[in-house]
Amino acid sequence: MKKGITKRSDDFSRWYTDVIIGARMADYSPVKGCMVIRPNGYALWEKMQSHLDRMFKETGHENAYFPLLIPESFLEKEAEHVEGFAPECAVVTHGGGKKLEEPLVIRPTSETIIWAMFKKWIMSYRDLPLLINQWCNVLRWEMRTRLFLRTTEFLWQEGHTAHATAEEAEEETLRMLNVYQTFAQDYGAIPVIPGRKSDREKFAGALHTYTIEALMQDGKALQAGTSHNLGQNFAKAFDVTFQDQRGEQQLVYATSWGMSTRMIGALIMTHGDDQGLVLPPKLAPLSVVFVPIFKGGNGHGEILEYVEQIAASLDSDISHRVDAREEYTPGWKFNEWERVGVPVRVEVGPRDLQRGEVVVVRRDTGEKINLAKDSVKEKVRELLEEIQSSLYQRALRFREESTVRADDYQTFKEIIAEQGGFVHALWCGNSECEDLVKQETMATIRCIPLESEGETGACVRCGEQSQERVYFAKAY
Amino acid sequence: MKKGITKRSDDFSRWYTDVIIGARMADYSPVKGCMVIRPNGYALWEKMQSHLDRMFKETGHENAYFPLLIPESFLEKEAEHVEGFAPECAVVTHGGGKKLEEPLVIRPTSETIIWAMFKKWIMSYRDLPLLINQWCNVLRWEMRTRLFLRTTEFLWQEGHTAHATAEEAEEETLRMLNVYQTFAQDYGAIPVIPGRKSDREKFAGALHTYTIEALMQDGKALQAGTSHNLGQNFAKAFDVTFQDQRGEQQLVYATSWGMSTRMIGALIMTHGDDQGLVLPPKLAPLSVVFVPIFKGGNGHGEILEYVEQIAASLDSDISHRVDAREEYTPGWKFNEWERVGVPVRVEVGPRDLQRGEVVVVRRDTGEKINLAKDSVKEKVRELLEEIQSSLYQRALRFREESTVRADDYQTFKEIIAEQGGFVHALWCGNSECEDLVKQETMATIRCIPLESEGETGACVRCGEQSQERVYFAKAY
Repeated sequence: MKKGITKRSDDFSRWYTDVIIGARMADYSPVKGCMVIRPNGYALWEKMQSHLDRMFKETGHENAYFPLLIPESFLEKEAEHVEGFAPECAVVTHGGGKKLEEPLVIRPTSETIIWAMFKKWIMSYRDLPLLINQWCNVLRWEMRTRLFLRTTEFLWQEGHTAHATAEEAEEETLRMLNVYQTFAQDYGAIPVIPGRKSDREKFAGALHTYTIEALMQDGKALQAGTSHNLGQNFAKAFDVTFQDQRGEQQLVYATSWGMSTRMIGALIMTHGDDQGLVLPPKLAPLSVVFVPIFKGGNGHGEILEYVEQIAASLDSDISHRVDAREEYTPGWKFNEWERVGVPVRVEVGPRDLQRGEVVVVRRDTGEKINLAKDSVKEKVRELLEEIQSSLYQRALRFREESTVRADDYQTFKEIIAEQGGFVHALWCGNSECEDLVKQETMATIRCIPLESEGETGACVRCGEQSQERVYFAKAY
Repeated sequence: MKKGITKRSDDFSRWYTDVIIGARMADYSPVKGCMVIRPNGYALWEKMQSHLDRMFKETGHENAYFPLLIPESFLEKEAEHVEGFAPECAVVTHGGGKKLEEPLVIRPTSETIIWAMFKKWIMSYRDLPLLINQWCNVLRWEMRTRLFLRTTEFLWQEGHTAHATAEEAEEETLRMLNVYQTFAQDYGAIPVIPGRKSDREKFAGALHTYTIEALMQDGKALQAGTSHNLGQNFAKAFDVTFQDQRGEQQLVYATSWGMSTRMIGALIMTHGDDQGLVLPPKLAPLSVVFVPIFKGGNGHGEILEYVEQIAASLDSDISHRVDAREEYTPGWKFNEWERVGVPVRVEVGPRDLQRGEVVVVRRDTGEKINLAKDSVKEKVRELLEEIQSSLYQRALRFREESTVRADDYQTFKEIIAEQGGFVHALWCGNSECEDLVKQETMATIRCIPLESEGETGACVRCGEQSQERVYFAKAY
């Protein structure tokens, strides 16, 4: 018998872990800070990968693979980069039984090794833009870890592109931010706020960083994807120039952008409920589960045949499974598939068989619907679409209700301390002010939204003239 | 201007490297022993992954992901395993700026970390079989490396399964060997000999290892995939037992099996020619390239429109590209696409347009065929099938011609030294004899074929009674 799931209202953090363990998405490993992604979690990652990968290819990117190990000296070539990442690195000092001449770090991100290669590949304007993506594992030594959200090793994709002009690099940075936003909203059903990071929060080595920020059910924000305009910083560090159309040597412009298995954590905390995982149909590895209800000793064959027939009528792009296991009761199976987050369950008992019907249960609302068997094919498709958009609308409503404007610091502090969520407040643009807010409230600037209203006024913390209303929140 | 490709007959090893660099499949990296897989190489790996992954799922396996880093002590739990792999390990001694209490090795293969998890997941016979696959990177410190064939880091998949009985484990081991054989032959067009490894050549920690062995154009053999029956070795090392149907605790049986980016090396050396790569249509990322031949200053639009129309008529499962770049000549493009190995090229010049025809060129034979434009859709599909089977037949013929029976050691030595290929010879089953043959000829036993004729006679080396005719060869 599996343990129950802690209620969100009792302990959100335990609920989160219970959902992951209960849905067999991941498990703790014996290696400090590292997790195991179990088949239910990995199948979700594969769905996410397939959509993102298609979107990357549609925007002209090609996949490649670069070495896991990076010479320590490479990291040091970009001053901000090494400062940001060196403290988090795992270091290989021995290989093949011998001490290495130069230690190698396991990639925390791959800018340095990729730009060392870009130097070999980029000669002329004809070689630009160079649009590369890599799916891989990275390592960042973390003190406090959390399944999917923060682990020493994680899986991600990292895009790395090279451009002839600053304008093209900025366009690319925003194009990929937009891909992330589309993915989060249209596939993950997670509403996000696209914006720019403050200098304090930007990527180590970037000119500036864009982000999409989501809001979890406990009122904490989560950074779900970032896109960096790296300017000429890495071209300078690795001496990457190209001959332009007039025959002159120019430094190359760079971007990088990434989304990781952290997104799985965002999905769980956006849609999950006290019964377990709730998956948006477009990312659910399994869309529909059929549970035949066997009563007593006979009629199993007849019900199973009826169920198999209906299941086979579904369009081939709707994945389904018939759970005909005899060793478990229907009630056990209902719980199991709810915990795993399958969007639609179809129950069929002897009475349904007699009536030529089925009972369809929505995972998101629990609503039960009686359907004639001939309408299942069509109605289930509609229902999946309905669930997809309904999950998004529900999350959007939650975010809107959890976003408050604050124009004085007392109110600001109370909201952050008591109810959480986004606080939309004016900020002077000063890093010291930002630091003080963080020290005093634990809230950080999540982003300076792309869609700014150009409002001016007094900074919520210091009262100085402010040009921007930004989003503050406590965050994962 | 790109450098030419060395002829195979001049220097096979340089030819191999030239093909890879010339087709932009991979490049040397600044990290010792590690390569970069460039987009043309990675796209091929993605094609291979998609077919293998489907075949794994069709045989009931699920993907998961386990940690990259393994505590050194885990490796030591299985005596043969640590002896085989410890000398090849890269060791992480520092993380997050501190020396680690216990060094971590980067996985050279994942049996130990996976069986540590299997211990948590396997309780009862209901949890069996457990059928897991992982796509990942692994590291084995190599002294002499070679693009795709032997690199310190490489990409692969590793299957790990747990079973209730020895019979099921053996069935699984052979089932996956068969999947590899099907993949190599039906997709890679590479004929392989399935067989068992001698004890000397088996996986460190296995009861026995099965392999598929291919023959390269230079007469050297290449191990293209292996499947191991691990017996209860890892269950013992990690204390993994299950309660059987009678309520008794039993040790679990294991298998593991892997195929890697090495397979890309096998494809190159099986099918490549002096113009570059030749890819079997089922694995080619790009099936058909259209090259419009622009003559003089006008008519570009008309030809391009004609080409685009024909290209659009292809079925959607046949990937194609129209290479309309103005900055390169048609001749340059022909060379380029030949080097990259695209199976079918379609050339269209002004005269073809007038006649309502196209010229189709087979990459494998160089044969040119005139086709009426309305027949392109159908004929190109047929041609791709024809190329696929023709590549296989050609490689099979080569292997058959390069396989010789030898019943005395003088002949054996001459064949190995002078012509290479497989030598099919009787062997007494003794490891010392095997070692002597290796010392004296550099040939190893590639496999004891599954299809044995049960022939007995005198061992080719020592003359003792032999039960098996095995395949010897020099190998990669």
